[in-house]
Amino acid sequence: MPTTPTEQDVIRMLDALSNWGRWGKDDQLGTLNLVQPKHRLAAAALVTDGVPVSCSRPISTEITADTTFQPLRFMVDSGEGRDTASPARRLERRGASEFIGMVFHGYTITHVDSPAHYFWDGKIYNGRSCNLVTAREGATVEAVDLLKDGVVSRGVLLDVAALKGRWLDSGEGVMPEDLEAAEKAQGVRVGEGDILLIRTGYYGRRRAEGPRHPLKDGSPAAHVACAPWFRERGVAMLGTDTHNDVSPVPYPNIGNALHTVALVAMGLWLIDNMNLEELSQACASRRRWAFMLTVAPLVLRATTGSPANPIALF
Amino acid sequence: MPTTPTEQDVIRMLDALSNWGRWGKDDQLGTLNLVQPKHRLAAAALVTDGVPVSCSRPISTEITADTTFQPLRFMVDSGEGRDTASPARRLERRGASEFIGMVFHGYTITHVDSPAHYFWDGKIYNGRSCNLVTAREGATVEAVDLLKDGVVSRGVLLDVAALKGRWLDSGEGVMPEDLEAAEKAQGVRVGEGDILLIRTGYYGRRRAEGPRHPLKDGSPAAHVACAPWFRERGVAMLGTDTHNDVSPVPYPNIGNALHTVALVAMGLWLIDNMNLEELSQACASRRRWAFMLTVAPLVLRATTGSPANPIALF
Amino acid sequence: MPTTPTEQDVIRMLDALSNWGRWGKDDQLGTLNLVQPKHRLAAAALVTDGVPVSCSRPISTEITADTTFQPLRFMVDSGEGRDTASPARRLERRGASEFIGMVFHGYTITHVDSPAHYFWDGKIYNGRSCNLVTAREGATVEAVDLLKDGVVSRGVLLDVAALKGRWLDSGEGVMPEDLEAAEKAQGVRVGEGDILLIRTGYYGRRRAEGPRHPLKDGSPAAHVACAPWFRERGVAMLGTDTHNDVSPVPYPNIGNALHTVALVAMGLWLIDNMNLEELSQACASRRRWAFMLTVAPLVLRATTGSPANPIALF
Amino acid sequence: MPTTPTEQDVIRMLDALSNWGRWGKDDQLGTLNLVQPKHRLAAAALVTDGVPVSCSRPISTEITADTTFQPLRFMVDSGEGRDTASPARRLERRGASEFIGMVFHGYTITHVDSPAHYFWDGKIYNGRSCNLVTAREGATVEAVDLLKDGVVSRGVLLDVAALKGRWLDSGEGVMPEDLEAAEKAQGVRVGEGDILLIRTGYYGRRRAEGPRHPLKDGSPAAHVACAPWFRERGVAMLGTDTHNDVSPVPYPNIGNALHTVALVAMGLWLIDNMNLEELSQACASRRRWAFMLTVAPLVLRATTGSPANPIALF
Repeated sequence: MPTTPTEQDVIRMLDALSNWGRWGKDDQLGTLNLVQPKHRLAAAALVTDGVPVSCSRPISTEITADTTFQPLRFMVDSGEGRDTASPARRLERRGASEFIGMVFHGYTITHVDSPAHYFWDGKIYNGRSCNLVTAREGATVEAVDLLKDGVVSRGVLLDVAALKGRWLDSGEGVMPEDLEAAEKAQGVRVGEGDILLIRTGYYGRRRAEGPRHPLKDGSPAAHVACAPWFRERGVAMLGTDTHNDVSPVPYPNIGNALHTVALVAMGLWLIDNMNLEELSQACASRRRWAFMLTVAPLVLRATTGSPANPIALF
Repeated sequence: MPTTPTEQDVIRMLDALSNWGRWGKDDQLGTLNLVQPKHRLAAAALVTDGVPVSCSRPISTEITADTTFQPLRFMVDSGEGRDTASPARRLERRGASEFIGMVFHGYTITHVDSPAHYFWDGKIYNGRSCNLVTAREGATVEAVDLLKDGVVSRGVLLDVAALKGRWLDSGEGVMPEDLEAAEKAQGVRVGEGDILLIRTGYYGRRRAEGPRHPLKDGSPAAHVACAPWFRERGVAMLGTDTHNDVSPVPYPNIGNALHTVALVAMGLWLIDNMNLEELSQACASRRRWAFMLTVAPLVLRATTGSPANPIALF
Repeated sequence: MPTTPTEQDVIRMLDALSNWGRWGKDDQLGTLNLVQPKHRLAAAALVTDGVPVSCSRPISTEITADTTFQPLRFMVDSGEGRDTASPARRLERRGASEFIGMVFHGYTITHVDSPAHYFWDGKIYNGRSCNLVTAREGATVEAVDLLKDGVVSRGVLLDVAALKGRWLDSGEGVMPEDLEAAEKAQGVRVGEGDILLIRTGYYGRRRAEGPRHPLKDGSPAAHVACAPWFRERGVAMLGTDTHNDVSPVPYPNIGNALHTVALVAMGLWLIDNMNLEELSQACASRRRWAFMLTVAPLVLRATTGSPANPIALF
Repeated sequence: MPTTPTEQDVIRMLDALSNWGRWGKDDQLGTLNLVQPKHRLAAAALVTDGVPVSCSRPISTEITADTTFQPLRFMVDSGEGRDTASPARRLERRGASEFIGMVFHGYTITHVDSPAHYFWDGKIYNGRSCNLVTAREGATVEAVDLLKDGVVSRGVLLDVAALKGRWLDSGEGVMPEDLEAAEKAQGVRVGEGDILLIRTGYYGRRRAEGPRHPLKDGSPAAHVACAPWFRERGVAMLGTDTHNDVSPVPYPNIGNALHTVALVAMGLWLIDNMNLEELSQACASRRRWAFMLTVAPLVLRATTGSPANPIALF
């Protein structure tokens, strides 16, 4: 029976799992230091079918129960009336285009979290001051453009929802025992440099039953109890199909405990709100849960993350 | 000596190079139909070093000479004062986050153009009506989320700037003869399903000399004279380090001729405003101009393109 | 008993009440031509107490049941941490400021509609083509900056909710008979050049019972049956505490009939989504329903309206 | 010859001119407490012609030399193609509308500054903490919606540019002696509760010579030397045709000194970037520099100001 850490245990994790200084005092990459050329080579070697699968949800402008900030799409120009317009007017108009806008953090958009996204005790990853993430200048350190060359490595899906044969419940955390049971059931072992994807089924449930607000209605996630396991295995990046913290929060004085331990202490970059439904099927049908994974965030200056469309390639 | 097509020649190309109906009357993918699993397999097989290279420019909020619409980044919350705030306040604030907004079409942001971006004679690719791209609903067809699974194939860089030993001039078009000379010099041959990248050096010049406005100051690009060559070779997607049309426009009654022939007639998806500087060095240092390329646009509903960070993997 | 016009009656109104050509073929001001210096003088002469009352709802970034597009407020810079920052940093930061954004049309923001906002049979007010309101250029005619000098005139509140002693119901239209009964009860008569404000109590109900979606849950408004009365009396501008059309729409083939007759045929500018609650009390306590009213839209280029904060002065 | 205060003099002003506590420790209105019903009555009594004049510049989406953040206008729907669309489609589309967005603070948009806009020594007006203006919540105190009922009072234009017969130069400050000379020349005296408007001609110069960047190219303004005069006279609100601080800043360790003394110490609300050109003509042609002025900011929650279109009525 899994043991749930106490609040004091979690506070201790912030020290015990700390990667501050591990890659030098100037490091900003955190656990992405673990991805080396050999891991990318090994990832490419996994490609045997040539079939790509998106791990992103669609970005829509709809207001739904899980919307915090409504994404925007407004056309700068459309195609309407170009069939009846004069030739001069057609030339003047040229292409259709649009303004897009979004707050990608939140509960609906698939996105990467950089370490600058989270704070503990006035600090971000590697002991830098929280005051380096400013209202005016944005994330002056540990911003997402550190990943300009993308993250390419072996992706491993641990399909906990498939293992349990059900969607995880609101407030239910994936425990280390679940990860190991999934490894065993799937015949795979998570290792250093891997991008670990954990499926709780939360997005599948959203598709089937409609949107719910993670804070009001609760959400599953990997439990912070898994953090030591992530460190031990050398997970380079963690993605799930939820916002990456159990809700309601089990540690009210810490808040989003997994974000805090992962981003601040470990420098472990996260991918929130993934769509792992098609990936789950692609893995199950092949009886294979490891694949080449490419995460290519936008090269946004001074931001604490980026929307992204992670592509698994089989 | 290369022959520049006349305006009538270009108009004829719109028929002669048309892919309308080629993949059925319901097709929206255009030349991306040419990328098959075998091409992705072959692309993955090119990975020998495990080194990734971004082909994206940074996205910055600065107003520069080539800005049409200023990109936005506003923080929803920052890290400032979290070191001195009360514990209750710290918990309340949680993560730093931001609103980002942009018109990715234009002259500065690396982005994908979907066929819905361009029109000719009241039509978009495959003969659909321009009125299907609306101010209210956006691109109701031929939108960028067709590429939700990304584009993964062999990328080939034809480094025309390196071939000529100089940046191409304003108004100078890359001609088919240049492409073939580059192929010969580099020992590579563009084939079916490839993502062709052409370097004019325009972005290198921007870095060295500062921004200029493509329409006011002129810009090089692949000349529309190359379109038959693209079709003959089976190019699946075309990217360059410019906005993908020569400026000033050589065919004033057509406007952006390459956009028109590529997007409308051929259904050839484009990548505009790439950064091919690091890629150029990565290729030259390896004496190898073919690599695995992953383009993963955001899964934006009803838009005529997407910002993207194409990743070349050696 | 009031007679509700048939759909054909409403179609006939579009001709019968037309002001096209009334102020010349180049006119864009419509019924605001009726406000002359003498009306402003008379309005100023009504000021006896020196007490101003806002007729605007607050603009908030919350998503509520009546939100179509969420208003945005993101800080460009805040005050946080300025007490502990270095002097150099304080100087560098200067003022707090914010980005604001909104789609003011809709059901929540108090705003002015210019004639360019609505269309009938391919035309806007005074017979201009609908194609003059473009996706790229916006409202190239009949835009809100025509009102750069504001609208200042006598405001008259007809408090139909007070007359009936209840909020009007969903789908309930204010009829001409109601206006005349209110005039009689209040001892006031609407005349040429007046800005007529009609209170249905809809916003009072929103405050008491919470937001509802006007289209899904229905809304009261002035019924299009009042349009002949507006024209006969010489109403220069019409404002109500709803979105200015009864919902569900009584004329499904016309849609928002009052918008169509008022904006397109009459050139009668509208103020949607007012807050008339404090005004109602200010009038009742003084037993006086006429006052000086100043409407000062922002001087927005090429837009079909503007958010505004109309100020009644007693 | 006017005496320019030293930096120490300006620092002393922060105490000497302080209105902290003057209207109670809970006060947020600052000098707007000085506007009483009698002032509004007196203002209304000035209306003799019934002619309104806007004091706002137009808000345009252009990028110009004085743009910091580009204002946005994107159509949500246009009128294009409604003449040729099917009746069903026309009904579906309804009105044209737009998204507007802007950072109104800066150098181009006519706007009101609330006291929350500025800080000194970790404090805002009336001694509140700077930490009450947050990145997430905005201005939790001293926000612009305090002015929901607008500001209506006597406006007085002191036309210093007319007095001097020239535009003021970059870096040139209007001094108290200039204000008194203008009073004398115009035959007007600024008194308690007035909204004082000072014309330097800066916007007239912009119209004639084109935009310049106030920080790079310099700007005139009322000099902070006038602050004691403002307090002595009981000025309730101050507006000018510049961004309201001399540039380059004469007190580098203070920065925008007038903003600091006015907003922080005095609680004196400002109107920046006005257009006083038409007002100047309206006053000169009537030989009258006092008029009714209505400033009606949008009722924006938690913001440090608002765009506004102040209307003078003669």
